[in-house]
Amino acid sequence: MKAVDVIIIGGSAAGVTAAVTARKYYPDKSIMMIKNVVNVPIPCGIPYIFGTVGDPMKNLLPTDMMMANNKVEVLQDEVVSILRDEKLVATASGEKIHYEKLVVANGSLPIVPRIPGTNLKNVFSIVKNSDSLKSMLESAKNSQDFVVIGGGFIGMEMAEELKKLCPNANVTIVEMQSHCLQLVYDPDFCALAEKAILDQNICIMTNETVTGLAGNESVEKVMLASGKEVKADCVILGIGCIPNTALAEAAGLKLGPAKGIAVNRYMQTNDPDVFACGDVADKISFFDHKPSALRLASIATAESRIAGANLFNILRTNTGVIGVFSTFIGKKTFAAAGLTERDALQKGYRIVISDAESINRHPGGMPGSEPLKVRLIFEVGSKILLGGQIYGATSGGELINVIGALISQRVSADDIVLFQAGTHPALTASPVAYQLVNAAENALVKMTR
Amino acid sequence: MKAVDVIIIGGSAAGVTAAVTARKYYPDKSIMMIKNVVNVPIPCGIPYIFGTVGDPMKNLLPTDMMMANNKVEVLQDEVVSILRDEKLVATASGEKIHYEKLVVANGSLPIVPRIPGTNLKNVFSIVKNSDSLKSMLESAKNSQDFVVIGGGFIGMEMAEELKKLCPNANVTIVEMQSHCLQLVYDPDFCALAEKAILDQNICIMTNETVTGLAGNESVEKVMLASGKEVKADCVILGIGCIPNTALAEAAGLKLGPAKGIAVNRYMQTNDPDVFACGDVADKISFFDHKPSALRLASIATAESRIAGANLFNILRTNTGVIGVFSTFIGKKTFAAAGLTERDALQKGYRIVISDAESINRHPGGMPGSEPLKVRLIFEVGSKILLGGQIYGATSGGELINVIGALISQRVSADDIVLFQAGTHPALTASPVAYQLVNAAENALVKMTR
Repeated sequence: MKAVDVIIIGGSAAGVTAAVTARKYYPDKSIMMIKNVVNVPIPCGIPYIFGTVGDPMKNLLPTDMMMANNKVEVLQDEVVSILRDEKLVATASGEKIHYEKLVVANGSLPIVPRIPGTNLKNVFSIVKNSDSLKSMLESAKNSQDFVVIGGGFIGMEMAEELKKLCPNANVTIVEMQSHCLQLVYDPDFCALAEKAILDQNICIMTNETVTGLAGNESVEKVMLASGKEVKADCVILGIGCIPNTALAEAAGLKLGPAKGIAVNRYMQTNDPDVFACGDVADKISFFDHKPSALRLASIATAESRIAGANLFNILRTNTGVIGVFSTFIGKKTFAAAGLTERDALQKGYRIVISDAESINRHPGGMPGSEPLKVRLIFEVGSKILLGGQIYGATSGGELINVIGALISQRVSADDIVLFQAGTHPALTASPVAYQLVNAAENALVKMTR
Repeated sequence: MKAVDVIIIGGSAAGVTAAVTARKYYPDKSIMMIKNVVNVPIPCGIPYIFGTVGDPMKNLLPTDMMMANNKVEVLQDEVVSILRDEKLVATASGEKIHYEKLVVANGSLPIVPRIPGTNLKNVFSIVKNSDSLKSMLESAKNSQDFVVIGGGFIGMEMAEELKKLCPNANVTIVEMQSHCLQLVYDPDFCALAEKAILDQNICIMTNETVTGLAGNESVEKVMLASGKEVKADCVILGIGCIPNTALAEAAGLKLGPAKGIAVNRYMQTNDPDVFACGDVADKISFFDHKPSALRLASIATAESRIAGANLFNILRTNTGVIGVFSTFIGKKTFAAAGLTERDALQKGYRIVISDAESINRHPGGMPGSEPLKVRLIFEVGSKILLGGQIYGATSGGELINVIGALISQRVSADDIVLFQAGTHPALTASPVAYQLVNAAENALVKMTR
């Protein structure tokens, strides 16, 4: 029977990062990755294969190459059970392999709503498999009436890309909440994102719950609780994902309150030789250690760097999910880090919110000059930064990471106003107008008076 | 005799920021700015008026507008003396004005080398006065052989912009050190910047000291210590600046070891009612509190936010200069924060240096895909981040500020590898390939083994 030191289940962002990290810290250990998808897509790139990139085969995670470079054996197979007493993994093709340490990084599954009609033809969940995405793209090319259910990041990005794919088609986003992206942004930032979508002749229906899909073989319409019906020959389900825990549960690994595999601060499950990371693992908030439902590739990779390093020697600690996002809608950056106003109030913080807006160049005549707006949310008293939101120029894609860095270090507004930002005419706002610093200054003034 | 609560001397980045900050914290105080330049240029934008922006009048700091918005009176005049015993400022036009608190923010003066010929026609220092810059631009337009003395940021940017202004002219940079930008980057990064300049058919002469300029009325050539001569009908002196301390010295304000006005942690001079900030103030390093020769608008504005807030009530402390720079040469971003390898070794640190390079998009087929390289320098033992350098895509302009934020909080490589960077296909590297995190991981591995 085959035996390796480390088995990693899953070949997407979490599995790849856990494997690369394990190799760095344990150069002498044998490591095997078992993955059940042949062509693994870059998860965040999936919407873009429909328009900007144009081909699922141009959005592949270079898993096999990276594993070869890191001397990690790849087994293309499906793990059907984990026999923890014997430290064995059993696969669909009948192999049994012994491990010393196991990493469960088999991700999440798209949520399929419990409504009639989801099994009709041309109703698609977003699956992390490039071969499935290829057939989804082929169907989409011939569609005329798209309905995207769910106005989160994936829904907004999918709608924009489908409109690029079929400029003459009707594209409609249906969202249960009163705003798209409401879980991530304050309402006025959501409204800016909605405008960027509406400007592309994409329709948005908010406060609408889908009650069913109907059609004769293929989907033909989407029914809403309000009684409205939307014509549809292609429906995309973009309402989120759930941890893919069936394998872990069958092996007696415990789940946490957010329905992922329960893990301790070191990414160990209730079996200390079995680690879990990425979408399949339960998460806690950085701010109050309460359960977090966030699932992001950036969180998955951070957790995997903990799990991979900790396999034979505890080197790292998980401090919980901050949540740093960005997207690009209608050529505008929308980004957020940490808590929104609603999140902060729900967690019991007393807060001050302040904004600063300026162009991203100086002077304004420099090429690429565009507005960039920054919102910061601070706790009153401690003055510690809890959250930030950005709208506008593409430099916001890294500026949100300045905010994320400051949140992670629990920096106060008193320190942020003294931040010595590097600025340049061709790259950023001027030092006088630097949005991050001025937003902090505005917050301090509010807190001082 | 006129009396105001606060007088600020200087109308550039430091003076403007001190005034705006003072107004925020002291809403009831009367504030006056005295400035001796009518049209104040945005300092970092000066090189760009020669090419990209094309007109000094499109590169103005909106000083008067900002002062009006902040209820700060502006006096267009030259301060000729500070009478500290009587708390008076005397101006060239004969006014005497009484102050309670004074902020000296009158900047720096370009260094003119002590060599023959600097008074010839068409030899220019870079002065922060848009009207002077206008005549410099007019002369430059008719030139055929430019020599830029000094291969720092300003020299590199000026050379590139002069080549844009006069594409058929010869442009030569003469630099004393063995590399351009050597004070800011490690040698291999300097070489990348030099290549970006050479690719534009601009000539670079390093290890060359200018011994004199010669010509009949107008400059005709530049003589070098090596015996070489360079034909020149326009010479730009870009070898740095010195604090403009004459006024302060005459008033008995003490200077510090770096030849600026000596200030304490609160930006007070030896007279506690007189503050100094910006280029005119002496500076210390964030790392070891030793004298620092850095002069940047971002440092000036940070200091001015301290001085302006501390006028009547000590609210803020200066922790010294980190030094965060960026520039854009040949459509590539070059940025740096904190210490270079040479700086760190000079300060006695034992260090580890590590690099990570990846494209700034994911997948690579996303528009705007370009390489972005990150170097990090850590102290061995503490593992604390001391410095970073960036080469490549424009997102580096804000990514350097992530590095600056981490340096300012004295964050260790152990924490940086767990950084939850927000990533997006259209904006950044993938979370698997995120350069900052991977450079930190590479450094940790070096330190662990």
